[in-house]
Amino acid sequence: MKANHHGGVTFPSGFLADAACAGIKEDENLDLGILYSEQPCVVAGVFTTNRIKAAPVLLCQHLVASNMAQAVVVNSGCANACTGEQGMADAQEMAALTADKLSVAANSVLVASTGLIGMALPMERIRNGIGSLCLSKDGGDGLARAIMTTDTVPKQAIATINIGGQMVRIGGCAKGAGMIHPNMATLLAFVTTDAVIEREVLRTSLREAVDASFNMVSVDGDTSTNDTVLLLANGAAANKAIRSCTPEADLFLQGLLSLCTELAKGIARDAEGASKLIEVCVEGAASLAEARAVARTIASSSLVKTAVYGCDPNWGRVIAAAGRSGVEIVESKIDLHFGDVCLLKAGTPCNFDESSVGAILEGAEVPIRIHLNSGTFSATAWGCDLTPDYVMINSEYTT
Amino acid sequence: MKANHHGGVTFPSGFLADAACAGIKEDENLDLGILYSEQPCVVAGVFTTNRIKAAPVLLCQHLVASNMAQAVVVNSGCANACTGEQGMADAQEMAALTADKLSVAANSVLVASTGLIGMALPMERIRNGIGSLCLSKDGGDGLARAIMTTDTVPKQAIATINIGGQMVRIGGCAKGAGMIHPNMATLLAFVTTDAVIEREVLRTSLREAVDASFNMVSVDGDTSTNDTVLLLANGAAANKAIRSCTPEADLFLQGLLSLCTELAKGIARDAEGASKLIEVCVEGAASLAEARAVARTIASSSLVKTAVYGCDPNWGRVIAAAGRSGVEIVESKIDLHFGDVCLLKAGTPCNFDESSVGAILEGAEVPIRIHLNSGTFSATAWGCDLTPDYVMINSEYTT
Repeated sequence: MKANHHGGVTFPSGFLADAACAGIKEDENLDLGILYSEQPCVVAGVFTTNRIKAAPVLLCQHLVASNMAQAVVVNSGCANACTGEQGMADAQEMAALTADKLSVAANSVLVASTGLIGMALPMERIRNGIGSLCLSKDGGDGLARAIMTTDTVPKQAIATINIGGQMVRIGGCAKGAGMIHPNMATLLAFVTTDAVIEREVLRTSLREAVDASFNMVSVDGDTSTNDTVLLLANGAAANKAIRSCTPEADLFLQGLLSLCTELAKGIARDAEGASKLIEVCVEGAASLAEARAVARTIASSSLVKTAVYGCDPNWGRVIAAAGRSGVEIVESKIDLHFGDVCLLKAGTPCNFDESSVGAILEGAEVPIRIHLNSGTFSATAWGCDLTPDYVMINSEYTT
Repeated sequence: MKANHHGGVTFPSGFLADAACAGIKEDENLDLGILYSEQPCVVAGVFTTNRIKAAPVLLCQHLVASNMAQAVVVNSGCANACTGEQGMADAQEMAALTADKLSVAANSVLVASTGLIGMALPMERIRNGIGSLCLSKDGGDGLARAIMTTDTVPKQAIATINIGGQMVRIGGCAKGAGMIHPNMATLLAFVTTDAVIEREVLRTSLREAVDASFNMVSVDGDTSTNDTVLLLANGAAANKAIRSCTPEADLFLQGLLSLCTELAKGIARDAEGASKLIEVCVEGAASLAEARAVARTIASSSLVKTAVYGCDPNWGRVIAAAGRSGVEIVESKIDLHFGDVCLLKAGTPCNFDESSVGAILEGAEVPIRIHLNSGTFSATAWGCDLTPDYVMINSEYTT
């Protein structure tokens, strides 16, 4: 299903992009970009649940509710959050400048920002940066880089599905390495598709895919003020329209879910200071919500994360985290595995080979599997280890 | 109100204690102790909200519900949690051994354990250890040390109040340096008093004092399986009985609250790897619950904690944490101070002197004050900075 990932958001037909180094970040990396569709797009969005919402989030929520979209302008280095009325004026000006450049309506331009909270956007640099952009089919890679903050690698993914004999493409990119916690929309992610698809299918598919992917990732328990996922569909594939409650809608959801999961895992793997990806599978839960709550609580636990960092087979921390998840788990029913090694069976500790568990904990991906034996639902969450580097990165962010 | 803190739990009349090095911990520190009252005590307890409860917690909950208490036996080094039926048998044997030694009823002996989860108690060492104890009025200091795990200093406090001309004493000790998070009862703390007091007043006072003290401390967001606070009143002061809804009940609550707050702040100050105490005061909230939720969320935020560690004036993280607290805060009403320096006024960033804020962040106690301007309720939470040492301590706990 996957080809190479280059140009994630420009992989579907009819999408162009470019990025520039506008001088918003202190280093000389890309920090401004535009994603553009040759045709107006049906659009869906999921946004942060933080009560403090950045100006671009408020603007996007308003636009996505009632408009078609044709472009996204995004910057990194400055979140344009906690910036008062000036912040909203600046977000609106970013949209207007982009609309002028592309000759589209200002209310068809979405805006996203990520970076330091509480600092005003350097608008002169943004004006110059937008003026310098030159959109192309090759621009997706640059856009994926322009949204990075403490990320060390760009995160892109693509998927294809077959709708009535017609190939439909989906592409996306995401950023996020800190201030990431599942109880929310999520980070920044832009997903494009050339599918012809009903707005309602687009929206429900995005909600469902985000809940099972980005919302199952935690880096540090802190929910950002700027989390935004946008999904734009321009119809360039000219497939038979994807309608609600059809096999085609299921196919689209599966493709979208696969792509979002790949991006979400990429975020956990590249999290601030992380040296390992932790994958927590919960099985046998009484409901999907309970499976997710247990999985996310374990993946978010500082004590689980430090134990994984230290390759310490301290499985009691996993059980303690499950116990504080709010779910009515029953201790005497729990089975726990690290990789293939059983540590706890029906709530009773097993004798296990410490060297086998040590080898699992030393891997780049650490699989933790807990069976609650209380139902038939399962869920997977992704996290990362907590390292001294995480502390150092975050103790020196503004200074 | 405070004298020296030596012998916290043996400061009130009629309480004796002792501690021993029974070999439960790998080092040669005290790890087993008994607290004893010469007279049967009215008792109140608050316990972990974790669904996974250690055997001694389950035993204490049962005993506190309907019995007088005359002793507490406690060990560190092994939590006796996730230990199945053997764990409950071992906790019951600890109580029975103590009851035999003291010639009291087994159901008047409370049990507490703290340490590694998932390991069976080394009962032979516990039997020998209990046998070796020799209770005295000087034993409180030893008991405070015997409950330590990763704590670096013992935490004790005392208070006195005047009830109808009669001095009433309160004393206590606490431990806890990791796996500590406010949504719960809390850690281990034992509080004694020689007050004559009605059982109902004792219970409501403990609940109220714990909610405003231990439950407002967070070290790492992880709730333990073993959290236990016990309050024993033996009546040796022979004061006029403290009854509900009287000025004397208020006096007792204030004394208890002061003592619990001192112990709670001691826990935050001595938290694993911490170099600073963070005190978060929330004012102007619409309810007490909302004030507490905002204060606890800020004090628990990994990003606030790392910024304080690095003396980074990254105040946006405080606002972002408040925004994800679940409270309906209004950005345009928020005032924020670090110490005396105003960083945000009515939601708008202030120009501030970075060196003044730097000096505040470099202090041993960092005061953060946020005014929501939405009501008249306030609350204070205590936390600590997140340091590389926290990660190192917790990556090497069992191995």
